[in-house]
Amino acid sequence: MTDPLPITPRTRLRRAPQRGAFDRATVYAILDAMPLCHVGYVLEGSPVVMPTIQWREGDHVYWHGSAAGRGLKAAVEQEVCLTVSLLDSFVLARSAMHHSVDYRSAMIFGRPLKIQDPDEKAAKLKCLIESLYPGRWDLLRPMTEQEVKATAILSMPIEEASAKIRQRGVVDDEADYARPIWAGVVPVRMQVLEPQADPRNQQGINRPDHASSVELG
Amino acid sequence: MTDPLPITPRTRLRRAPQRGAFDRATVYAILDAMPLCHVGYVLEGSPVVMPTIQWREGDHVYWHGSAAGRGLKAAVEQEVCLTVSLLDSFVLARSAMHHSVDYRSAMIFGRPLKIQDPDEKAAKLKCLIESLYPGRWDLLRPMTEQEVKATAILSMPIEEASAKIRQRGVVDDEADYARPIWAGVVPVRMQVLEPQADPRNQQGINRPDHASSVELG
Repeated sequence: MTDPLPITPRTRLRRAPQRGAFDRATVYAILDAMPLCHVGYVLEGSPVVMPTIQWREGDHVYWHGSAAGRGLKAAVEQEVCLTVSLLDSFVLARSAMHHSVDYRSAMIFGRPLKIQDPDEKAAKLKCLIESLYPGRWDLLRPMTEQEVKATAILSMPIEEASAKIRQRGVVDDEADYARPIWAGVVPVRMQVLEPQADPRNQQGINRPDHASSVELG
Repeated sequence: MTDPLPITPRTRLRRAPQRGAFDRATVYAILDAMPLCHVGYVLEGSPVVMPTIQWREGDHVYWHGSAAGRGLKAAVEQEVCLTVSLLDSFVLARSAMHHSVDYRSAMIFGRPLKIQDPDEKAAKLKCLIESLYPGRWDLLRPMTEQEVKATAILSMPIEEASAKIRQRGVVDDEADYARPIWAGVVPVRMQVLEPQADPRNQQGINRPDHASSVELG
């Protein structure tokens, strides 16, 4: 996990290089903190940025969708960029210039493969469910062959990746600290609220612990 | 605001067309609810998905960065896709297949222009500051000519755009409702926490209202 990731022309930071991190532990912590990601691919010459849910298993990242959808088809074996971002704070400085946000983001470049084997696909979907809701998979109505077939899963090795983190709060020009201007940070976070049971649940069913243990951020 | 947006090959939804919305009011509400966006552009043949802060004024969306950075340079007058996404709920169904998330997202395609005029640039940066922190601009140390010069601002008309919204909660196969499986939703939201004053603030400075009025989501 502390293996360094290679710094490539695509992952090297030209601006603010002190914000960059190139170790797997830092990148993986960001991926694991937020399932929402944005996948960029090129469709008929135009970039498309698609929000979707990602999950990680070891040194691979996965996302999925309809086998019939054009988004996944366009990404298979093509260059993509998968980005996960967490907004942590708004930074209010004494000059407009130094307003900023604190954040954590991870960016992965690569060419995803489509998983073909039905058993491997089911195993990866189990991994997705279990990563969000530990213990849930075995409680569910089992997947049908047709459902597995209708789901496309893309797999991408995490080989060319970087994290970018700003966690500095207010940093003003030295001369501006003497000004009578309020500066500070407004922290934000993803809040997980109380689960809401489906009104059509069978009577007497207890809410499993995994419904109230989702953690983000 | 209720003007329809044209449905183009890039914005038409092939899958789940009932999730699509093509009116400005819906798209603008999503942009205005979340300044964090992901901009996709093509750099030397590869897609790059960059998290950044967007703001809207009328029928244009803006983002900014260092005038020296390669990210903005690569996007100027090129095809980009700007996406804003809000995760609203995790949906726990009775089968793996129907697990989902409720969300709101907006996607804008276009070719951004770089704003050249320094006064127009300053006006747009004022709009950014004021959209997040009403009344703050006039309290700040004024921007210098050099700061305006060092900041690049991209402007893109909102002409080809769509929203995609899932807000349905649990939708299971009819036969599965009879199963003794807990189903429900776990709502999530961006929470804005108490502002934290910079320890280097001058003594006796009151916190302005705009520091505690940030709203997201």
